Parts: sequence; C-alpha cells; structure tokens
Amino acid sequence: MLDGILKRRFFFTPSFDIYGGVSGLYDYGPPGCALQANIIDVWRKHFVLEEDMLEVDCTMLTPHDVFKTSGHVDKFADWMCRDPATGEIFRADHLVEEVLESRLKGDKEARGQSSAGIDTSEEKKRKKKVKEIKVIKLDDEVVAEYEYVLAKIDGYSGPELGELMVKYSIVNPGTGGPLSPPMAFNLMFETAIGPSGQLKGYLRPETAQGQFLNFNKLLESNNQKMPFASASIGKSFRNEISPRAGLLRVREFLMAEIEHYVDPSDKSHSRFAEVKDLKLRLLPKDTQAAGQTTLTEMAIGEAVSSGVVDNETLGYFLARIYLFLLKIGVDPARLRFRQHMANEMAHYAADCWDAELQSSYGWVECVGCADRSAYDLTVHSNKTNEKLIVRETLDTPISIEAFEVELDKKQFGPKFKKDGKKIENFLLSRSQQDLEKFSKSLATDSKITVLVEGVENAVTLESDIISIEKKSRMEYVREYTPNVIEPSFGIGRILYSVLEHNFKVRSGDGQRGVLSFPPVVAPTKVLLVPLSNNPDLAPFVKEISAALRKLAIPSKIDDSSATIGRRYARNDELGTPFGITIDFQTVQDRTITLRERDSTKQVRGTVDEILEAVKVMSVDGASWKEGTVNLQPFDSQE
Amino acid sequence: MLDGILKRRFFFTPSFDIYGGVSGLYDYGPPGCALQANIIDVWRKHFVLEEDMLEVDCTMLTPHDVFKTSGHVDKFADWMCRDPATGEIFRADHLVEEVLESRLKGDKEARGQSSAGIDTSEEKKRKKKVKEIKVIKLDDEVVAEYEYVLAKIDGYSGPELGELMVKYSIVNPGTGGPLSPPMAFNLMFETAIGPSGQLKGYLRPETAQGQFLNFNKLLESNNQKMPFASASIGKSFRNEISPRAGLLRVREFLMAEIEHYVDPSDKSHSRFAEVKDLKLRLLPKDTQAAGQTTLTEMAIGEAVSSGVVDNETLGYFLARIYLFLLKIGVDPARLRFRQHMANEMAHYAADCWDAELQSSYGWVECVGCADRSAYDLTVHSNKTNEKLIVRETLDTPISIEAFEVELDKKQFGPKFKKDGKKIENFLLSRSQQDLEKFSKSLATDSKITVLVEGVENAVTLESDIISIEKKSRMEYVREYTPNVIEPSFGIGRILYSVLEHNFKVRSGDGQRGVLSFPPVVAPTKVLLVPLSNNPDLAPFVKEISAALRKLAIPSKIDDSSATIGRRYARNDELGTPFGITIDFQTVQDRTITLRERDSTKQVRGTVDEILEAVKVMSVDGASWKEGTVNLQPFDSQE
Repeated sequence: MLDGILKRRFFFTPSFDIYGGVSGLYDYGPPGCALQANIIDVWRKHFVLEEDMLEVDCTMLTPHDVFKTSGHVDKFADWMCRDPATGEIFRADHLVEEVLESRLKGDKEARGQSSAGIDTSEEKKRKKKVKEIKVIKLDDEVVAEYEYVLAKIDGYSGPELGELMVKYSIVNPGTGGPLSPPMAFNLMFETAIGPSGQLKGYLRPETAQGQFLNFNKLLESNNQKMPFASASIGKSFRNEISPRAGLLRVREFLMAEIEHYVDPSDKSHSRFAEVKDLKLRLLPKDTQAAGQTTLTEMAIGEAVSSGVVDNETLGYFLARIYLFLLKIGVDPARLRFRQHMANEMAHYAADCWDAELQSSYGWVECVGCADRSAYDLTVHSNKTNEKLIVRETLDTPISIEAFEVELDKKQFGPKFKKDGKKIENFLLSRSQQDLEKFSKSLATDSKITVLVEGVENAVTLESDIISIEKKSRMEYVREYTPNVIEPSFGIGRILYSVLEHNFKVRSGDGQRGVLSFPPVVAPTKVLLVPLSNNPDLAPFVKEISAALRKLAIPSKIDDSSATIGRRYARNDELGTPFGITIDFQTVQDRTITLRERDSTKQVRGTVDEILEAVKVMSVDGASWKEGTVNLQPFDSQE
Repeated sequence: MLDGILKRRFFFTPSFDIYGGVSGLYDYGPPGCALQANIIDVWRKHFVLEEDMLEVDCTMLTPHDVFKTSGHVDKFADWMCRDPATGEIFRADHLVEEVLESRLKGDKEARGQSSAGIDTSEEKKRKKKVKEIKVIKLDDEVVAEYEYVLAKIDGYSGPELGELMVKYSIVNPGTGGPLSPPMAFNLMFETAIGPSGQLKGYLRPETAQGQFLNFNKLLESNNQKMPFASASIGKSFRNEISPRAGLLRVREFLMAEIEHYVDPSDKSHSRFAEVKDLKLRLLPKDTQAAGQTTLTEMAIGEAVSSGVVDNETLGYFLARIYLFLLKIGVDPARLRFRQHMANEMAHYAADCWDAELQSSYGWVECVGCADRSAYDLTVHSNKTNEKLIVRETLDTPISIEAFEVELDKKQFGPKFKKDGKKIENFLLSRSQQDLEKFSKSLATDSKITVLVEGVENAVTLESDIISIEKKSRMEYVREYTPNVIEPSFGIGRILYSVLEHNFKVRSGDGQRGVLSFPPVVAPTKVLLVPLSNNPDLAPFVKEISAALRKLAIPSKIDDSSATIGRRYARNDELGTPFGITIDFQTVQDRTITLRERDSTKQVRGTVDEILEAVKVMSVDGASWKEGTVNLQPFDSQE
C-alpha cells in the first residue's frame, strides 16, 4: 500500500521512466524533494550550525591522481561473477547470501517450520535473483555453517567468496550454469576531462576527499584552532553492479558528510558529558564474530569507558546521530548501531560503526561513523609534498633527540643539479629508523646509496657531502597530522526509512494511508480547506495563505468540491500535519478550525491564535498539547 | 584587491589545488558556500514558493537515448581548432574574438587613442591566448568590418568561423602556426552505466530534460491545472574546451531552472499587471544585427505590446528575474537583457533573452530566458510514444474537419505482423498536410508508399487496406502540447557578479575591502565582539549567540585580542552586515551596541531591542533606518 502511495503522489519515480528507466536511478517529485530538503535543513541545523562546522562545496568531477592516492582506484570495488554462457553479471556477496538464505528457507519448509516474518516482505521488495525456493532438508551441521557464513557475509574478500561458491556449489540460479570466479569491479564512474581526452577523471564516490584536500585552508579559516570539523552536502556516485533495492541501492545519491579533525593523542570531546547517559542499541563486532545478532543496550558513556566504542569523539557522534535520526522521525525500535568487523574495516580505520535502519528490505546501513585515523591527510601529503598538519605552540618547550641530515649545499647543488631537490626531499622525509641505518653506513663505508623516485640511477652520497648524526634540540612547536572522525549520511536511504517508519494505515471507511512525519520534515505543513466554494470564504483563504507564506510555513489550498474528510485523507497521504478549515462561522467571528493529522483532533480559535499555534508546532517543535493548550476543542465536521 | 580577499578568506579556490588544480573546477569554502546557499534560498522563495512551482530533483546521470532525442548528442557542441604542430586546442569563436579585439587595440594605439576602460581590467582577468598587442594601424574599413564581426560574434556557425579565420589570417597567436578548420566538440561528459560498459550515459548539461520527462506526473500533481511550472536546482556539467575565466566558465556548475508550461494559444500571464511598469534595459536583436550595442530602456509592458518581447509570460519572467537579481545585490547599472539573434537561437525557440551582468570579465550571460515552444515535449513524445499533452474539456464542443486514417485491421495485422505497430504509429502521427497528400495518392494510384523508421523496406499500402478521408466530428476535449518558457539561472556566475558588484574599498587607515552584501545573502549576519576577554562579558556573548541561533540567524564570535576596529574590518571583508559590541556597560544595564557595516553607524539598546532590530533587518528585509528607528545613535568605540 505504501508503494502505491509513494508512486501515485509522486514522492519518487524511476528516472527516465518513459524511456524504460535505468536501474539505480530515481527522481524525486515535489513531496519527495521537499522531504529531502527538510531533512537536509534539520541536518544542517543539528550538526553544522550547532557546532560551527565549516561547510564547503567541492566538485564531483575529480582527476585520477586524487583517487589513486586515496586508494579508490585500486580498492573501491565490489566482486562480480559473470555467466560466460548468458552474459549475466552477479554481485558475488549478494549471490552467496541469497542462495544460502533460500536454502535455509527450503530447509525450514522441509522441517515444517514457518519462514514468515520480516523476511517474507523482504522477498517481495528486493527483486531477487533466486526466484524459487526448493524444499530440501539440510543436515543440522550445514544449517549451522550457513548461518555462520551469513552472519559474517560483509567480511569476506573476493577470493574467499570464490571459495564459498565452490564449496557450496553456487551457480547461476536462473540457468544452473557455472559462473566465473569473482572479479573486482571498480565502482567509480569514469570520464575524460577536457577536449584532448587525456585527463582521466572520476565522479566522486564520497564527498570526503574534497574536504581533506582543502584541510590547510579550513584550518586557516578556523584561526588554527583545533579540534574542528568541515562538512559537505552533495551528490556522490557509485556504479553499482546490479541495483535492485529501490532507493536503498542507487547509482547517484545525496550524501551529507562531516570530517571532524582531532588531535590523535586526545580524542576526548568537550560536550561528551551532554550525551553520555543516552542509551543506544549496539551490535559489537565480537557478537557478530561469534555468529550472533543479539543487540546490547548500553549508555554511550559506558560503551566508551568499557572500550566497546573506541573513543569519546566517536561516541559523541554516535549519540548525536541517534538524536538527529529521532528528530526526523526514525523509529528507535528499528535503529541499531553495528560495529564493523576487523576484516570489513579499512586497514587504516581505528573503529567504525554503522547506524542501520530496519525496513522491508531488512537492516540497512544508513549512516557510517568511522575513525579514519590520519590516513587520508597522510597519503595526500606524501603524494603532493604539501604538509597537511597542525602546528601547536608548546607551553613548555621539550628537548628532542633525533637523527638529522646535513648536506654540504655547495657541493650537493652542482653535483646533482636538477635532481637535487628530489634527493633532498627524499632524505628529509626518511624515518628515524632509516636515518639511523644511513648513519651507520656512513660510519662504516663513508657513503650511502639510495634509490629516489623520479631519479634514473641509484644515488651515492659520500661522507664529505652528507652527515647524519643524532642531535638534541629544543622544540617549541609540536607538529601533528590530525585524525579524522567521519560521520557520513546517506540521505536517500534515511529518507526511505523515514517513509516506512512513519507509514500507518487508518481504518474507518476503507483503509487510508497516513504518513505521520514530524512537522519539521513534512513536505507541506498546513492544508487550507474552505468548507465550500462560497465566495465569502475566499478572502480568508487568501489572507491565511499569505500569512503562512510570510512565516515561511509551506501550505497548500484544497478548494476542490470533495468532502472535507476526503480532502484531509488525500493530504494524510502526503503527511501534511495540520489542516485549517474555513467555514461560515469564520466570516462572522474570524475563528477557524485546526486539525491534527495523527489524532484527527480539532481545536478552534481566531486566525491569529491558530497561526501562532501552527508556528510554534511546525517551526519551534512544540507538541500538539503544548501548541494548543489555550485553544478550545472542537467537534469534527467530517 | 578583491581577488586577494576572495582567496584569503576562502570564498572559493581551484579544486584539487594541492594537486595542481584542474581548469574549470572550483570548490566553495565556508563563506562562498553560505553565500551560494543564501542565493538559492532567496531564489526558492522568490520563484518556487511565491508561485507554487513544483520542485523536482532529477539525476545528473542520463542515458544516451534521452540526449539523442533532445538533440544534445548531435548539436551540443562548441567549435575547436587544433594546432597540428603543438597539439594546442583553441575554442574557435573565442580565438577570432580575441585576435580581432587585439588588432583593434593595436590600431587604437597606433592612432594615439587610449584603450583604457573596462577592457583593460578584462585583459588582466582572463588568461588570454593573445599575449601581445602589435601596434599596427588598420584601414578605416577594416576597423568597421572587425567591429561588425565582433558585435555578431555569438551568431556564427563553425564553417562561418572557419571562413573568418581564413579571411583574416587568424593563426596560433603563440607560434604563428596554422590551425585546423573548426571541428565540432561535444561538450557533454560521457560515461558508462552498469558493469557491462554497454549503456552509454552523459552527465546532464542542463536540468531541463529531467523535468520534461516527468511532465505527465507533474501535471497530475497539479490536478491537471494549467498553466503551471516545475523547477529544479542542481549541478550540471559542460566539458568546456579551454576554461579561463574563473567562476564564469566552469565545467561543473549549479543551475536553477524553471520550466513554465503554457497553452500555446494563450501566453498571457495572470500576474503581468503587477510588473508591467517595471523598466528594463534591453538590447534587442535588431540593434545587434546592425552592429550596435546601445541599450533601450523600456517598461516591460510596452516591450510586450510593441512586440520587442514576444509574449506576456516571457515578459513577466524577465521582470521577475530583474527583481530577483536586485534582491540579492546585483547592481542595476551593470545588468542588461540581451535578445538572441535569429542565427544564435535554437531553431525551435520562439524568442530568447539573456540577463547579462557586467564584471571585470565584460558582459556575461547569467540567466537565460527562452520560449522553447513545444519542442522538447514533442520530440520525447514522438520517440517514446508516450503522450506528453494537456487534455482540456471544452465548454462548448467544436466541430472539426480533418483527414483521418482508417485501416482494415483484419488484413493489416496479418500482412505486416511485427512491423504493424510501427507502421500504424507512423500513419497516425502524420500531419494534416501529409494526410492530404496521401489521400490524393490513394485517389489517383489506389496505393501509397512510405518509409517507416525501424522497418527495413518501403511499405506499400493499397486502398483496400487503408482509407484516408476528410471527415467532420465533434470534439469535446481539446488536446495540446504545452509550450515551455524556461528561465535558467547559472548560480556560480550570478554569485561571482554579486561579489564584484558589492565590493568597495574604504579609505581611512589603509585601504580596507568591504563586501556590501544585502543582509539576506550575507554568509554571516552578525559578528559578536566582546570589548575584552574579561570573564564578566562572556555570559552575555554566550546568551546573545544562543538567542541568535534560536532565531536561525547565523552569527560568529570574534573574541580575539585584536582591536574592535580591526575585528570589524576583518568581517567587513566577509560581508557581515551587523556587529554587536558587548562592553562593561552591558554588565550593568544589558545594553549593547549595534553597528552597520556600510555606514559604520552605531546605535545602542537593550539586548532584546537590538535582537529584534537584527531580526527585522536580516530576516524580514527592513532597512537600517526602518530597523533602528527607535534606538539611540551611539558614538564609535573604534
């Protein structure tokens, strides 16, 4: 029923529908577009304005070198299998998951157990590759093994998936034909920048890199103060292998990302105390590694102090994510935080949690919150030789003992000419261990020989030109590369979950769908309904409509000839929280009726009183009870 | 000086700066990002909310077929010339323009005339290909010819540009080497959608097509009422040949577009009377065709009634565009509306005007406003066989005489089998003229022969299977394809023009830059300045900051140890319109000082009074005089 409403009321639609559509691409119609804009608006207030984050808007087109450095060119891939006979392409992890799930269902049926529940509706939604469930009883050991694999399904590498496919005889479910072993398929869309076609570029798969590249300018904008955060809202792109889950797996999507830069030696957060008692439902990695999915409810303060969550800043953001999701209408009973397992986390990440929302597609990651450590700033800095660091004046200078390189510039310059700069940079960026080794070589052989990128031959430096010795010096400034905590929001997935979490069916004369959005995200806040087309009512409709526009409260007029009840029902489907009825009493005493969508309760007051109530409820966030405390209850005209 | 401020305060920056940048790609830093968001917010209120437009959000990734139909695959190109010796690539029209302009400058110098004025600063800004101006006097006739060509430069085709290059011996300005004749270079970025690589796609070069494809759903959302408009805000992409004009010519840019659907037989506008007396500065096509650039100031009502502007709806939007631009801070003296010449307009367009803004880059198109006729809806409808039309019940049915096709289905179906549908669609979509011709052929030859797309051989239909005769019938419903009036805004170009139009230098102690943004678009509205770091002042700073946040008025605190004057000066560069000073008097009587950026005038009042004044000036749009009428003037502490 919800699907029908979303389509009919044009919340969203497959893009290029009249051309047959392209899977994984969707357009938002007017109510979907407004809902999206409102979610973004709440996000901006809840995160960016509340914490003075520095918002930036970076390009989606990105040259090859940036994603080569970040690791996306080599590693941002899913594993796909091809059927050489039919040309069909499957995403390997999804295929293994679907086949094993369908076998478990067949087993349950063979054992005479029901396989109903959330899984059944899930089946209806996802257009699955496995169309038919074979009723075959499995050995108890096999069932346990399948369940174990499924609990860990997000953690397998391509070759491991290939082994599972061989072990469990997984083939093309449609034809029974064999599949190729999993091959990596890079998910970035590629294009060429400029008329020569020689500058390879990609559409960004996340907004993060643009923020990292601007780190120095951002730190400068923040007057060199740490910690701080940048933020960005914009489209990203992933060339999904076979998207078949509506808005939950798309090729072009809106993201909102925060990069919070923090001193690696101090990941405390000044506002952690404000959230520490908030209880979250957690699914830690140890639980998953044991093949379990039981949730642990725990105060975030305790989660951090007991080491379940790595640090305060990460914990602070998990709590803030929770508060944001509740504000826009997510059902807390259908929200959990799942920790990444060691093998599914990027090697550089210190810890990573996903906020997962449950819908008819199952539990789906909607927000990621990762501690990316110093990885990104370090790799870009190494590649470009641009320092992406924080310099902090020390209150008390410290004495440092370290190996230092000294070059005899008079000899060095003429000897190496144009290669000199590269060799010098190479030497100055060596680790203390390397320098210690060099120092020993110089002591024993009176020379060192090194290979420098970009210099053709091996470089030999003799001890008359270079000296490397341990020296002690006072440091007045501490330099460090900040760590990055990254809360990353998939707005489309959140939006779809909000639609499902707020959908209710009202019984009465026929089944009527209601979208119970919180007023703050509802596409339209107020429906204006004149009782009839009598011209005496029109001036009031016009006046109230103009007054609402002045208050920047989106409203719609429905002056059709349908009954009032019918007109309200139509707008319940759009999630419009308030309705104002203008009737003949209005002409006499300027009173109007205000109706609340969920309870269908009504109150009566003057135009000014009702507008004030609408304002405090839809802008300031007051409840119906708070907003209408001074108004008279009114019996329905419906 | 402005350039320095924009860079230093991080309004925008070349993207991937630390990687050396990519021409035509820019990132917005925090103040630029906020300025952009505010311009968009005003746009949405001024157009979408004010006129109940239906906002949609469509994907940027678009499959090949859509842009093949729209004509972009074949025609959305610029002309480029290549230097076979060096591999350099030039945009042909820009090269001809630059070379002729440089020759005219050289001529002026040879004649001892100054070539100063706006052109000189333009030279500084654009990184021109012509580096050096040769002082050579030209014949008077040649000068006139060059000026004539330059006035028409936007109207030449590729072959015509090639002829001009031969005629005027235009070569590579750097080397003097010959160039290839102009070749078409398609400006769309190409990519492949899906893992097979076989579905070719493009990044959209405009947001319009997504709106057209959803026409039926939009009309349905509007309860079938005409006229109405859809609107969209989003990024578009053009692979510019050689972008060298900062934010004014970029490869990825934010657009805001309106598609207003109107009955082709009635292009009046119900609100035209509200704007008809507004005077605009026009540059009509006839003036340009005569090689002139003199502006005509004319009320828009007169422009429409005299036929200078094609119709009321187009005129209405020109006026609304004017009002929008003024609201966000465009200087009306540096704004003109230039009509497209016949040869630069798309063949289907009925009329087209550009709002051009003058900056140090010259006059640049920032808003286009075109009457696209029924072109787009017609071509997509023909391609997909999906009717994109309006059905209007007629008050009085009308009698229609028209040629009608009748097929003998019993014979037709078996004879043409799978081609039948294509042939039938072909026949049913012929014009009345075609049908009249067919009817005559049938009368004389007893058969017709036609070529149908997608059917291999010519199709012959004999008069036993088809009849085409003029018949009269009553029509109760009128069907028509709406025409589209399209106001299309390049937000980045507008934003840059607003920066230049609002930049002023304040003399005094040193030259200080001020960005005099209207409060409604200023990135930050209020700067909070405590007189000193005395802890007694801190609670007031915190209280006022929280109160402003509650009012959703963006503010910043500057509690550095710099002088108050210095702190204000820093924020004048960011365009912050209001400053609040908290001093020791505040601690005693809760009064604070409010300063206005442009006049540097100050007033004093209680915290509540000042916050109210800030609110009416920055949210409700009141002037300083209106907002502070009840407050006491205050002498500067600076």
